[in-house]
Amino acid sequence: MGALVFYSEFDDPTEWSDALKACLPELDVRVYPDVGNPDDVRYVLAWKPPAGFFAPFKNLQLVVNLGAGVDSLTGRDDLPEVPICRLSDPGMVALMRSYVTFAVIRYARDMPDFEAAKRRKEWHYIHPTPLDRIRVGVLGLGALGSAVARGLAEQGFDVRGWDLSPKVIEGVTTVSDPTQWAGFLGDLDILVNMMPLTAGTRGLINAEVFAALTPGTKFVNASRGDVVDEPALIAALQSGQVGAATLDVFIKEPLEPNHPFWQMENVYITPHLASITVPTSAAKDVAESIRRVNGGGAPLHQIYPKAGF
Amino acid sequence: MGALVFYSEFDDPTEWSDALKACLPELDVRVYPDVGNPDDVRYVLAWKPPAGFFAPFKNLQLVVNLGAGVDSLTGRDDLPEVPICRLSDPGMVALMRSYVTFAVIRYARDMPDFEAAKRRKEWHYIHPTPLDRIRVGVLGLGALGSAVARGLAEQGFDVRGWDLSPKVIEGVTTVSDPTQWAGFLGDLDILVNMMPLTAGTRGLINAEVFAALTPGTKFVNASRGDVVDEPALIAALQSGQVGAATLDVFIKEPLEPNHPFWQMENVYITPHLASITVPTSAAKDVAESIRRVNGGGAPLHQIYPKAGF
Repeated sequence: MGALVFYSEFDDPTEWSDALKACLPELDVRVYPDVGNPDDVRYVLAWKPPAGFFAPFKNLQLVVNLGAGVDSLTGRDDLPEVPICRLSDPGMVALMRSYVTFAVIRYARDMPDFEAAKRRKEWHYIHPTPLDRIRVGVLGLGALGSAVARGLAEQGFDVRGWDLSPKVIEGVTTVSDPTQWAGFLGDLDILVNMMPLTAGTRGLINAEVFAALTPGTKFVNASRGDVVDEPALIAALQSGQVGAATLDVFIKEPLEPNHPFWQMENVYITPHLASITVPTSAAKDVAESIRRVNGGGAPLHQIYPKAGF
Repeated sequence: MGALVFYSEFDDPTEWSDALKACLPELDVRVYPDVGNPDDVRYVLAWKPPAGFFAPFKNLQLVVNLGAGVDSLTGRDDLPEVPICRLSDPGMVALMRSYVTFAVIRYARDMPDFEAAKRRKEWHYIHPTPLDRIRVGVLGLGALGSAVARGLAEQGFDVRGWDLSPKVIEGVTTVSDPTQWAGFLGDLDILVNMMPLTAGTRGLINAEVFAALTPGTKFVNASRGDVVDEPALIAALQSGQVGAATLDVFIKEPLEPNHPFWQMENVYITPHLASITVPTSAAKDVAESIRRVNGGGAPLHQIYPKAGF
């Protein structure tokens, strides 16, 4: 079966090692930099390893990206010529869905108004809007985006989804025709960004996008900060064109202490944790890919970082 | 078909009249006090009508309670001897589910910590807990309570439900054995009250219940204020035995300006709007009951206020 090398500055190697061994007792798990003889290494499970990381492993058969975002691998010129795959982790999906569900319900149910009324010690009644009259648009219908859209539809919202490639999601109206882009943006109460960071999406949510929204539309970003033009978002929040924003990700993280977002009453900030990989649920998926590659097959959830997806 | 009399101080008669006529064009809808000839009145759709309200209507065949809470009718000695039913409204269920889902995710995802960090302008990372490790207990598994419990289970939480009568809910561990009451309470991260207000539940959630919780358990009340012993809750919140509370309902509403809850940092207050009836979705149900009664049958969702359920 051979050895797996684990690399991450963010994830707990012991938790991962235990979770992998529970699935594949015969797997030899080595935590970087204690890689032993590099010729034993047949699998890598890593999040943002340093440049040149892969070079010593001549017998590599599989690289698993320790996360859903392919952007951590795009742009590298040192990737080995072996199958590369992303994690598909039901625990990660549940966390992401819960984060966006929270942010969307908070706006849909007028919670910022009640939070302000609490500070004024005031009983301030607002008649609720039925959920099916609240239009939520989800940009990006990949593994996480489509789960988010489906979850919001199950809550009872009027959910519309946008993706460059046509998608079918139960209970969600999906659009991929570029001529419908402005119309999609202009008919929403809440816009949720779930787009991956690629060369094509960097800075995509810009002043033009915000101007296309109905004034006062709320914005949620739970994917990557670089997909959004931050100065344009700040201007839209200041003018009221964007009514409020819930932001988990930023162009520069941690967000600097003097960043304007901290000062803005209508911005809800969380420190990039909408979703994390949960070893106990994700390891099952990694183990299955190792089993398949070991048996001469293809791994699960293969990605193509050079193509940007 | 005859006439229906509508009575509510809170709900919009025009919206209801339109919604009912869309289902039953031949129905004669009259809004109290313009009831016309009382002998024409065969149906009443009312929320908390005044004492003696029903007496003039000699040909009454059906009373529909304009809400889910049967407590608005229990204790009255002027109810007519005709079938009485409650609304079953998918719009109301969706609103209630969204409210509790919001409150539970807010605690599960450490949002109060991020709200405090925002005020300090501080990037304060807390590693997320996988949702299936968060134990949520739902007290009361009636129409709304069971929908709430099922919705939380679908989100991925570890959901346990309590009801006096045994219930089966997909994905939810249900308990009804009184000997397991203390054990149920002691094994939770978040406790949600969805119990109706009856003679048996008034003041039921008291100091003894709070003492049985694991210290720091969060509490959500989305049913009725009178089910909770408020002084006991205040003491438990002050000692930290209850870590935080989200409260939509109170013994006295509106909550008085000098009530201690307003001052408490760990209390999230909303002004009794977790759920309201949505005419466009609820009218279908009322119309069906009228059709059935009109055809000599029994209405939907019959209740027995004298028995308290």
